[in-house]
Amino acid sequence: MHDQFHTIVIGAGSGGLTVAVGLSSLGKAVAVLEALHVGGDCTNVGCVPSKTLIHQAEERGTLDPEGALAEVRRKRDALREKETHEFGELPNLSLIFGRARLVSRTQVAVRLPEGGERMLQAENIVIATGARPRKLVIPGLPEQRMLTNETVFELPVVPHHLAIIGGGVIGVELAFAFRKLGSRVTMLDSSPRLLTRHLREAAEAIEASLAAKGVELHLNTSVQGYDEATQALHIERNGSVATLHDVDYVLVAVGRQRNLDGLGLEEVGVTFDSRNGIAADSYGRTNVPGIYAIGDVTATSAFTHSANAQGRRVVQRIAFPWLPATTPEPFYPSATFADPEVATAGMSQRDLAARYHPALIKRIRVDLVTQTDRGYTDDLHHGFIIVDTVRLTGKILSVTIVGPRASEMISLFTLAIQERISLYRLYRVVYPYPTFSSGIQKVADAFMRETLPNLRGELATYLRYRWARPARVADVTVPLGARAAE
Amino acid sequence: MHDQFHTIVIGAGSGGLTVAVGLSSLGKAVAVLEALHVGGDCTNVGCVPSKTLIHQAEERGTLDPEGALAEVRRKRDALREKETHEFGELPNLSLIFGRARLVSRTQVAVRLPEGGERMLQAENIVIATGARPRKLVIPGLPEQRMLTNETVFELPVVPHHLAIIGGGVIGVELAFAFRKLGSRVTMLDSSPRLLTRHLREAAEAIEASLAAKGVELHLNTSVQGYDEATQALHIERNGSVATLHDVDYVLVAVGRQRNLDGLGLEEVGVTFDSRNGIAADSYGRTNVPGIYAIGDVTATSAFTHSANAQGRRVVQRIAFPWLPATTPEPFYPSATFADPEVATAGMSQRDLAARYHPALIKRIRVDLVTQTDRGYTDDLHHGFIIVDTVRLTGKILSVTIVGPRASEMISLFTLAIQERISLYRLYRVVYPYPTFSSGIQKVADAFMRETLPNLRGELATYLRYRWARPARVADVTVPLGARAAE
Repeated sequence: MHDQFHTIVIGAGSGGLTVAVGLSSLGKAVAVLEALHVGGDCTNVGCVPSKTLIHQAEERGTLDPEGALAEVRRKRDALREKETHEFGELPNLSLIFGRARLVSRTQVAVRLPEGGERMLQAENIVIATGARPRKLVIPGLPEQRMLTNETVFELPVVPHHLAIIGGGVIGVELAFAFRKLGSRVTMLDSSPRLLTRHLREAAEAIEASLAAKGVELHLNTSVQGYDEATQALHIERNGSVATLHDVDYVLVAVGRQRNLDGLGLEEVGVTFDSRNGIAADSYGRTNVPGIYAIGDVTATSAFTHSANAQGRRVVQRIAFPWLPATTPEPFYPSATFADPEVATAGMSQRDLAARYHPALIKRIRVDLVTQTDRGYTDDLHHGFIIVDTVRLTGKILSVTIVGPRASEMISLFTLAIQERISLYRLYRVVYPYPTFSSGIQKVADAFMRETLPNLRGELATYLRYRWARPARVADVTVPLGARAAE
Repeated sequence: MHDQFHTIVIGAGSGGLTVAVGLSSLGKAVAVLEALHVGGDCTNVGCVPSKTLIHQAEERGTLDPEGALAEVRRKRDALREKETHEFGELPNLSLIFGRARLVSRTQVAVRLPEGGERMLQAENIVIATGARPRKLVIPGLPEQRMLTNETVFELPVVPHHLAIIGGGVIGVELAFAFRKLGSRVTMLDSSPRLLTRHLREAAEAIEASLAAKGVELHLNTSVQGYDEATQALHIERNGSVATLHDVDYVLVAVGRQRNLDGLGLEEVGVTFDSRNGIAADSYGRTNVPGIYAIGDVTATSAFTHSANAQGRRVVQRIAFPWLPATTPEPFYPSATFADPEVATAGMSQRDLAARYHPALIKRIRVDLVTQTDRGYTDDLHHGFIIVDTVRLTGKILSVTIVGPRASEMISLFTLAIQERISLYRLYRVVYPYPTFSSGIQKVADAFMRETLPNLRGELATYLRYRWARPARVADVTVPLGARAAE
């Protein structure tokens, strides 16, 4: 092992490993520094255990909840071991456990677990240290009753009454899972609704589904404190106080905090702030040449698939610097594995509002429950497709799907948006019957039906508002907020 | 009601109703003639009851099989009633029950159920009479023990031991459903494998899944006879005879037969034969001007979604005859709602073999079990994506997906094929993690990995075989065979 590398990657999570595997397979000597576990959040405390739990909860339900939890740990440990072994064996890749700190623009010091420090040098440094759950202080709550996504999968038995604070992706996914495993589940959020980054309709569908499954919801609500003697969680809404009884665990899922501390960013002059993390462009380049940042430690989409995609772009930049850096960053899709699932593609509603005059946007909603035969045969309770499109042209801007297979259906729209395929062209696609995707046919039908008989009016609206800018909104920054690190 | 119409549609199934609703909404006077039930096979004896049964079997399993069957009938009847009512109320649309017969190129006689005949006249006649299950004679089998898709949903209790003859779409879907409801299920097919129109790998996955769920498979096997006294079904394979015991029902799903009899086709000179049905072009036009044919009564794809798509094309032809008839007919996708699902898009293997030299085709296979994390978290047993693509160019020709959500995933490929999106461009799409669709990313990755380092060799192969024709194969006709009428 040499202390001189082509590239040093700090953090062996989804983003960091993508860079490390990509560059090492191209023959570059890469060091990957990891403070804890190979696989990062995704493998250890994120998507893998949560999706395994969701699947196990579906399969075992209340019959064997402890078996479900044990299986989650078994599969997670097996995957971690496999990945650690595989990445450790890759040629040109050195996996080094320890805590990293930038010393100069080309040097990283690693504090080794066995003690001592090791100094590494490379022309490229990629920071992929991710994020961790934000803490919350709840007066009176003993530490062993407080859970986050980092500890919840260690539970040997399911909670009797689980209070979940935070109605973002993590909170919602785990609410469904633990409810199916038999826990009493109560969700609290200080916002007036769940999933605040999604369309109101999506949040309402999920709220209705949670309620139908027996999950209690308390919105606009904050937590006051906990009384260990009576296992009472005191909450407050609009000035009035209430009590949740028999709460044995509190899961805190109130957003995430970027791992910026102790990295030596100030020392080498990397621009960052605590709200948006490290400033990086769409190819991961920070303000310091040779230093890159990707994944949750930056301000971009906080998903495993976006960290992977960013990692690919960094590999391209580092390995082929002469290629033009002009490929636009993709619109990252999102998926929330609730029941039903919620998936989005294209621009966020915030970006949309910033760039297009509202009169220019035609919104089409197709109900999967009442407008598709699959919704009928499968007794669907909640589901829809909402597409925001440009009037007249049918250009697809933003899509939200709520439904049992939304996370798979959404990629057709990601492709359509990437390839600038309008609803006129989508109209020609034939979907298998009976599927939920045939709702996409109905979206195109509705656009045609509402546009073609009124071409003159649509054209007039288009010409009037195409270059009209909406009132300026605040800068579009993306704090991690209540998002999942997946 | 007038006896003079703009268009007469014979058959109120998926295809016929698409034409009738489309034309009547454009203000044309349409008569729809139906001999039995509105909704045709799909609503009454096809996709709707079968998908409801599949869903009910998944939900209720062995706990309440009779409840599942009763729910199938309840939902089917409710839908039939709703559709009959809705279509009966549409302006410009006259729904007439009775059996139709062409009298001339513009005249149809309807034998009414209450007796007597009525004569209708129109400039356009659309034949959409569909197909029915092919019968099989099994010596000794009492009629009440013989089922087809037209009678199987009437069963008040699930069979003790159901023998299914025919391993096509209908046989396979119902085998999974009845097995989940607790029946002993044995499948027989005279072919060496199931799902003979699909790739061998797809059939093998379904055979393995059926076996894992406890369905007995007898391939290369024919039925000899039945002995009512002992409830024994005698079968024969390679000259040796065996017996299946305690068989209380035999489901015959050995293909379908087009409804051509008594239509008066010969009298008005419409070209047809018993193997391929009525000859029609991609706009449904027969050899007789003004007479159209769509859906199962023709030789095209025997699915509800293809009948619907054909119906749309007929509407376009009849309502806007001045539009150029140049839009190519779409490649119809297919979906088999087995467990896992099987879905296809693009050219059939037979068409592929007829048009491309084998050396020009690169086949890529991504295993959803071992190569996607969703396969891991969800304990997937069988699943893959196979894409046949043109070397060098990455043009997508044919796709088969086997997996739990294949019927939804396939439409991304339908769109890609329609829009000529190559694997180079598919490579840029970001899929939500962890989904089965991320296997599509791996398809594109594999193509790039196998193509880019060997561009010179791929180019040479491409140039050598691009215009080389394969050995001529037999005419590509599509008999209905063992396909479902869905």
